[in-house]
Amino acid sequence: MNEFQRIDAFLEAFSRKPAPFGPGDDAAVLPPTKREQVVTTDALVEGVHFSRRTFTFGQVGHKALAVNLSDVAAMGAKPTWALCALQLPDDVSDKDLRELSAGMAALAAAHGVSLVGGNVTRGLQLSVTMTVAGEIPQGRRPMTRSGARPGHRVYVSGPLGSASAGLEVLSRAKRDAKGKLLVDKEWEALVLAQRSPSPHVRWGLEASRFASSAIDVSDGLVQDLGHVCEASGVGMTLDSGALPVLEALLLWAETEQHVHQHALTGGEDYVLAVTVPPSRVPAFEQHLQKLGHGAFPIGAVTRTRGIVVDGAPFAGRGGFQHFGR
Amino acid sequence: MNEFQRIDAFLEAFSRKPAPFGPGDDAAVLPPTKREQVVTTDALVEGVHFSRRTFTFGQVGHKALAVNLSDVAAMGAKPTWALCALQLPDDVSDKDLRELSAGMAALAAAHGVSLVGGNVTRGLQLSVTMTVAGEIPQGRRPMTRSGARPGHRVYVSGPLGSASAGLEVLSRAKRDAKGKLLVDKEWEALVLAQRSPSPHVRWGLEASRFASSAIDVSDGLVQDLGHVCEASGVGMTLDSGALPVLEALLLWAETEQHVHQHALTGGEDYVLAVTVPPSRVPAFEQHLQKLGHGAFPIGAVTRTRGIVVDGAPFAGRGGFQHFGR
Repeated sequence: MNEFQRIDAFLEAFSRKPAPFGPGDDAAVLPPTKREQVVTTDALVEGVHFSRRTFTFGQVGHKALAVNLSDVAAMGAKPTWALCALQLPDDVSDKDLRELSAGMAALAAAHGVSLVGGNVTRGLQLSVTMTVAGEIPQGRRPMTRSGARPGHRVYVSGPLGSASAGLEVLSRAKRDAKGKLLVDKEWEALVLAQRSPSPHVRWGLEASRFASSAIDVSDGLVQDLGHVCEASGVGMTLDSGALPVLEALLLWAETEQHVHQHALTGGEDYVLAVTVPPSRVPAFEQHLQKLGHGAFPIGAVTRTRGIVVDGAPFAGRGGFQHFGR
Repeated sequence: MNEFQRIDAFLEAFSRKPAPFGPGDDAAVLPPTKREQVVTTDALVEGVHFSRRTFTFGQVGHKALAVNLSDVAAMGAKPTWALCALQLPDDVSDKDLRELSAGMAALAAAHGVSLVGGNVTRGLQLSVTMTVAGEIPQGRRPMTRSGARPGHRVYVSGPLGSASAGLEVLSRAKRDAKGKLLVDKEWEALVLAQRSPSPHVRWGLEASRFASSAIDVSDGLVQDLGHVCEASGVGMTLDSGALPVLEALLLWAETEQHVHQHALTGGEDYVLAVTVPPSRVPAFEQHLQKLGHGAFPIGAVTRTRGIVVDGAPFAGRGGFQHFGR
């Protein structure tokens, strides 16, 4: 396949072929926007964020979009359009590319996101770099990291530590005679969190009515909350017993300490963490309950800098770092 | 350096540190736009688009932005903001990164483009994937590939074939004792076109008052005009003697045929090609002349499909393909 055939293969899964992709125009044209927009870019790189041993191409396509949608969700925005830049090694087949595209297109359709353009080039590593935009709903303001104040409550949108545990499950998994990875039924929820995270877009949109600050938990809870503390000039106390975790993590981890380690420092959960002023707490909790979403209180914002867990300053490694120390 | 220190090093060259980059917020917030926007994404990948043997890090940063600005220019838009996603191998030093950033920042400043966010990750190959947006001026429409009609004249915005010749010059260049590439003074203009292309942003903005279609010449003139022909349902006749080329290309190429080969099929020139209706030709030429820009007539749009050069259907390979045939 040449470059243009590759683009065609990639685009088949999307409902409408966007004109600007490849042999269309040089750029996508977008109408004027009445509301504030957010834009973000994030990449999924083979050997860094996934391996072909443990991810299907469909999961790679899904996750590349999901990690960007999570950033948009953390701003309290509704996702609107996306661009996709692919680096493809020569051994990625036509079929592989269609699978990657189908995984991405399904998630895009679920969130009403239009793929408006992209780029395809050769590369040694498979990588998918996406840019995703969103729109701030009328009358709302984007959530940022700088609005947390002492006394505000800290909430997360879902279970923590699942994705990093799922990565360990996958790395230890054996294969059957046909090469299929063997994962115990009990750990499937962990593996799903690692390979097919569901960005909490609706949660972010609803939480933005109440929250004073927000971030998505991508590098590990303590590290990401550390960014909120830094941007807001505050500290936090967290209660490790209150951290929501999947049943599967409780079963899989050998000790309570191990569970907490994953929940506090495991990356890639793509849940949202927000702070809410005390006066807004009842309305916030009620509103999210009514919508069938959970909101899990895990701690409080403090005047004293630093993150304190169960009464002691957090001393462990904060989370995932792309570059070693 | 850890991930956040790398981001800080990268951002130093830019006039204002964009909050959303890395430990800022999860996405950049942009105000509503009154006018149509264009967005495009393009990547510069080590081993595919450049090698560290022949490019400085500053040139890599410059070119990564330039190729995207050229796409925005081809739509007749004024560039506004950019996102930058970096994949960095471990052997890229702090100093290298600052050089890359300085090259990009200088071009961004020249075009009034704000870097509003980005992402840094590890990778085996150095790659720079940018997303650039632009705004269509009030009262204008974006230029597309589909508006060329029989009888319209074909123009380009500058010399052709320089960048591909420059690549050959670089690939044959020897090094001095200190490792510096030795390039003859005579061929410096060719090498400059390869390593530091100047996107024709102003030209595109002005041409959009008159043009019926446009494209940027990135993969080779015939291939790129082929996209215009396909999108417009037309053909073209080109006059190879009219193709603008640098003096350096005339000197460097051994035969006239060799000159034409580079001008017709050499990639990466990042000049613009437009079609202009005959009734608009005098005003178009006058307007661009008055502004001190050249506009080079190279042919005409025909009803018959296909591209004809000097009276014969073009038979050669059309241009650069990322993936083999």
